[in-house]
Amino acid sequence: MILSALLTSVGINLGLCFLFFTLYSILRKQPGNIHVYAPRLVAEGKSQRRNHFNLDRFLPSAGWVTRAWQLSEEDLLSTSGLDAVVFMRIFIFSLRVFTFAGIIGVFILLPINYLGNQLSIDFSDLPNKSLDSFSISNVDNGSNSYISSKRIACFYSSKPEPHQFTILVSGIPVSSGSRVGESVESFFTKYHPSTYLSHTVVRRTNKLQRVIDDAEKLYRTLGHLKSKKRTQQRFRRDGFLGLSGRRVDLLDQYEKKLEDLEDNLRMEQSSLAGEEVRAAFVSFKSRFGAAIALHIQQGIDPIEWVTEQAPEPQDVYWPFFSASFLKRWICKLVFVVAYILLTVSFLIPVVIVQGLTNLNQLEVWFPFLRGVLTITFVSQVITGYLPSLILQLFLSLVPPIMIIFSSMQGYISFSKIQKSACTKMLWFTIWNIFFANVLSGSVLYQVNIILEPKEIPKILAEVVPAQASFFIAYVVTSGWTSLSSEIFRTFPLICSFVKQHFTGNDGEEFQVPSIPYHKEIPTILFFGLLGVTYFFLAPLILPFLLVYFCLAYIVYRNQLLNVFAPKYETGGKFWPIVHNSTIFSLVLMHIIAIGIFGLKKLPLASSLTIPLPVLTLLFNEFCRKRFLPIFRDYSAECLINKDREDQRDPTMVEFRDKLVSAYQDPALKPIQYSGSIGRLKSPLLHSAVA
Amino acid sequence: MILSALLTSVGINLGLCFLFFTLYSILRKQPGNIHVYAPRLVAEGKSQRRNHFNLDRFLPSAGWVTRAWQLSEEDLLSTSGLDAVVFMRIFIFSLRVFTFAGIIGVFILLPINYLGNQLSIDFSDLPNKSLDSFSISNVDNGSNSYISSKRIACFYSSKPEPHQFTILVSGIPVSSGSRVGESVESFFTKYHPSTYLSHTVVRRTNKLQRVIDDAEKLYRTLGHLKSKKRTQQRFRRDGFLGLSGRRVDLLDQYEKKLEDLEDNLRMEQSSLAGEEVRAAFVSFKSRFGAAIALHIQQGIDPIEWVTEQAPEPQDVYWPFFSASFLKRWICKLVFVVAYILLTVSFLIPVVIVQGLTNLNQLEVWFPFLRGVLTITFVSQVITGYLPSLILQLFLSLVPPIMIIFSSMQGYISFSKIQKSACTKMLWFTIWNIFFANVLSGSVLYQVNIILEPKEIPKILAEVVPAQASFFIAYVVTSGWTSLSSEIFRTFPLICSFVKQHFTGNDGEEFQVPSIPYHKEIPTILFFGLLGVTYFFLAPLILPFLLVYFCLAYIVYRNQLLNVFAPKYETGGKFWPIVHNSTIFSLVLMHIIAIGIFGLKKLPLASSLTIPLPVLTLLFNEFCRKRFLPIFRDYSAECLINKDREDQRDPTMVEFRDKLVSAYQDPALKPIQYSGSIGRLKSPLLHSAVA
Repeated sequence: MILSALLTSVGINLGLCFLFFTLYSILRKQPGNIHVYAPRLVAEGKSQRRNHFNLDRFLPSAGWVTRAWQLSEEDLLSTSGLDAVVFMRIFIFSLRVFTFAGIIGVFILLPINYLGNQLSIDFSDLPNKSLDSFSISNVDNGSNSYISSKRIACFYSSKPEPHQFTILVSGIPVSSGSRVGESVESFFTKYHPSTYLSHTVVRRTNKLQRVIDDAEKLYRTLGHLKSKKRTQQRFRRDGFLGLSGRRVDLLDQYEKKLEDLEDNLRMEQSSLAGEEVRAAFVSFKSRFGAAIALHIQQGIDPIEWVTEQAPEPQDVYWPFFSASFLKRWICKLVFVVAYILLTVSFLIPVVIVQGLTNLNQLEVWFPFLRGVLTITFVSQVITGYLPSLILQLFLSLVPPIMIIFSSMQGYISFSKIQKSACTKMLWFTIWNIFFANVLSGSVLYQVNIILEPKEIPKILAEVVPAQASFFIAYVVTSGWTSLSSEIFRTFPLICSFVKQHFTGNDGEEFQVPSIPYHKEIPTILFFGLLGVTYFFLAPLILPFLLVYFCLAYIVYRNQLLNVFAPKYETGGKFWPIVHNSTIFSLVLMHIIAIGIFGLKKLPLASSLTIPLPVLTLLFNEFCRKRFLPIFRDYSAECLINKDREDQRDPTMVEFRDKLVSAYQDPALKPIQYSGSIGRLKSPLLHSAVA
Repeated sequence: MILSALLTSVGINLGLCFLFFTLYSILRKQPGNIHVYAPRLVAEGKSQRRNHFNLDRFLPSAGWVTRAWQLSEEDLLSTSGLDAVVFMRIFIFSLRVFTFAGIIGVFILLPINYLGNQLSIDFSDLPNKSLDSFSISNVDNGSNSYISSKRIACFYSSKPEPHQFTILVSGIPVSSGSRVGESVESFFTKYHPSTYLSHTVVRRTNKLQRVIDDAEKLYRTLGHLKSKKRTQQRFRRDGFLGLSGRRVDLLDQYEKKLEDLEDNLRMEQSSLAGEEVRAAFVSFKSRFGAAIALHIQQGIDPIEWVTEQAPEPQDVYWPFFSASFLKRWICKLVFVVAYILLTVSFLIPVVIVQGLTNLNQLEVWFPFLRGVLTITFVSQVITGYLPSLILQLFLSLVPPIMIIFSSMQGYISFSKIQKSACTKMLWFTIWNIFFANVLSGSVLYQVNIILEPKEIPKILAEVVPAQASFFIAYVVTSGWTSLSSEIFRTFPLICSFVKQHFTGNDGEEFQVPSIPYHKEIPTILFFGLLGVTYFFLAPLILPFLLVYFCLAYIVYRNQLLNVFAPKYETGGKFWPIVHNSTIFSLVLMHIIAIGIFGLKKLPLASSLTIPLPVLTLLFNEFCRKRFLPIFRDYSAECLINKDREDQRDPTMVEFRDKLVSAYQDPALKPIQYSGSIGRLKSPLLHSAVA
């Protein structure tokens, strides 16, 4: 790819960004779009529909930028939780690292590279080392300390939450004739008599959930029909395809159906109550009591009475609860294999994209294109813009698949599913976007690489610099475009438009989205990896990355303010993923440096670089001991202090009463639709919004 | 090596074995050797010195074999603890596996191999698979279950022991001006008020220990001098080299010195009491209380208030207690590197040994030997016997080095040091005896092998069968000889002889040895690895191995009865090492099988074998989840049941009083030598024996 192609790409994307940002600043002020651009504010009742005409509504403005910029970390913490703070911390961390790296890169490395007659550098590894010492010893360690102290401060200031007092016990042994509940009750009253409070046995409710879903759908249709003014739509002939037969009132018909379903539901609820799973949520009187049961192996047999921290009640992923220890273990293995297969088979679109950047190859494959490809603009669009766009499209299909994989793996909560999908997505991105692109193609070739670890630095040093321009284009196309599309919320906007104009739905039915960490974090971390890897190979990438991170900082703060509401709180458990990705990026950079110094016939520099990855890995090992435990569990000191605080709290009695029923399966809660059709929101939807 | 050399080796060793066993059966009946062959019985007062003459004393007999054979597992458990049972279980496990494998090997594989015209097999992998399913699914799983149930049964039947109620806390934060003890007291009374009992702060006593050692040495010399009948030895001139000057009474001189030393000691003890280390043994009122403090991270900072299970008081390795978290971590890294360096540099003797098996090579190196080497017997001894012997000599130097490495790594108890040295020794043996021999030599060549994992099966399949005869000789030489030398106790016998005849020491001063698990277990497991690996390559190895295991079974039972006394009890924690080694052997066998089927142009068989290592590793993963937790800690169920039992025990009050002072550093205990010179044993020695 030549420079003009890169400039074309930058031009197109800069134009698109401006367009999208301008459009956003206008569209967000239109009352019809309020559910698209500020669902959170609507749900919190902070935003009112202003239908009166105003010229200001149609002029672009930058007020949202100021608001997003001024948002303080304390506000963010109180409104969106620690996870959001951690998420924003990624940008702050990246901005700090790459501002420093950018200054070195643009003012020192770039002139030297330009004056030299080769693509990549050929001098000592001094700046390389300085970045290393900077990024590792100061920023990363500091960030870890910062986040972990934040995590503990958050815990101390938190209100009593059901999940702090509850553990999930699975693999409960049941003697024949008795029930799971009895077994749990007798075990915990025997071994934890002073701290045990209550338990909720998990029940198999997949079938039930399906009936509820049907009922809900019917309820919505009914509500929709009732709100219709044109009564003719309410009637339909009951014969063939609604064309013949007598006219019936659809409303009556549906109401009848809904009542039937509800009867069915109640019957199922009472009959399914017997279908117990050998798992239960066990609540304790104190946090420390729960921690004792959590951390000490309970039964003699390690696969019985297996304990794990309970997720927040709204975070529980109920469908998982059908599997035994062995079944879950096998499921996990199967989906790890499936993940590897997906990662490998994804190389096919990558190969196609690589074909696009090699125009000559493309002409060989599709000779009829030769005429079109000779036009300069077309060829520049194809080589500079199209490859990234296609990759982007294929990539956007992957996060939902990863969520499915993770949810099949037997995680018990949405947060864990999302965390696992986040890790999966990160390695998927690094492998398929970075390695597949630099190693250009063929699966077999890549497998050979893994089997010859000695050759890896040399091969990487040969192929990574060659792809510099592709990745600069990738930052511009994929990074900038994804930000504009993020703020513009293209897909929700289209949905909302279609709903309003074709189905007559006035947008009252909506859910506040939660931030898709599994999609966003890997993308951001991958840009970090590109920055670290190409810092000394092609410092030109750094300004583009800095623009990306600055924009992202503003855009995501705005989205956190207006659009996304937290669905659960992990207390910053996503941060170790950021840490691991940073360490991996640094080691990758070191390996490439070793290879480059080898290629440039600088064996001394090459040997001097070898301790760097070793030291980085040792530092990582140190961090795993020093910081990772804080992200796993809270210490006895924290738990006991917090418990003692509660003893003075008069609301604890009330809280404990609520705790007993906090982990009831939503499918087993009594549901009443048929009487409530006049209301605007269904009870279920309402609870999802609140 | 040709068959005749193998037969020579077998012949020599068979002869040696018979000689040693016969000598043992005579020598063990001589009263002078009672401290060599039955130190344990003497210490327990079960054996008396019979000085009367008896013809029976000079005739070989096999009574000891019967006694060793008849020893039941319950007796072994009660006299030598679970560790000894686990140790003997290795032989039972190996005997079962190799009896089965031996029947298949000798009656099926051997005839086929003999009828075929090549060294190794070339038919389907059926027997391979059948061994696999046999050894993995049944024996191993069964053994794990058996040992883990034994472990729990032992715990239930154990008396209250100090280490069950105590944890070791390190990284204690101390505010300036206060002392470690105050910090511990306030933390545990604050956070564990109902279970905390007492603590013992660890003190730096290295210097003190040296003074005590000096005093003890002097005390011994004094005792020795006093018992001398020839008074002239008591006097010496005090001038140059004891040749000139006036005659002084050495006894008076030494007694004066000892008193000085003791004064010094008492002063040091009181002054050193202030030199606290930031670590303490913290005792609790119940086992469950200790487990709670052990398993839950105590302080907010994970490197403060670090808890680990306390070892038995006599098992504590006091010198370690000078290091902080970071220092211990760095020490660990340094000694891992040292271990790797030692393992690599050990290849030099291995290369020399390999040179001996290739006579031609030897003649090239040392041309003057040509004359000698043409004598058939000499050449047979050199090729068949000498290589193993030299390897054996070098190998015998390694276990003490491994113990030093492990003790420098910061383990807190002898048992952990020995367990770590055992693992180190196992991998050292496998690498240096197995891999270095089959890959014949050069370090560089081996490093290349690791870096080309794809080639490993092929290379192993080429080189492993070629070394079959060497390893058969190795089993015979090293295995059989080590057993005869074990039962004959060559080195202690010589020491005892020298002591009795030259120093006039009558053998009253002696320590009952404990079994050197770090030396024995790796040797035995390595023979297991040879058996599994060569089972289908050279089934001829199996009869020799079976003889080894049968002999070892008798010999070690005899030694456990008469010689070794347990110094500590880990509750079978050595078993996971056996499990891991077995899994490794099986996977190695599978890999070699894959390579062999590839070499023999049987791609289908080769591909069909690939799932075997995968399944074995999955099985290992399953065992890690299913059984390993049992070997790490006891469950809440066990601990609470045991605690409740104690509540009915009236001796618990007394036990708790003792518990408070159980973990006092022996160097800080009041010591009085000068008055007790008339007694036979020093107080320290006495406590080591008891």
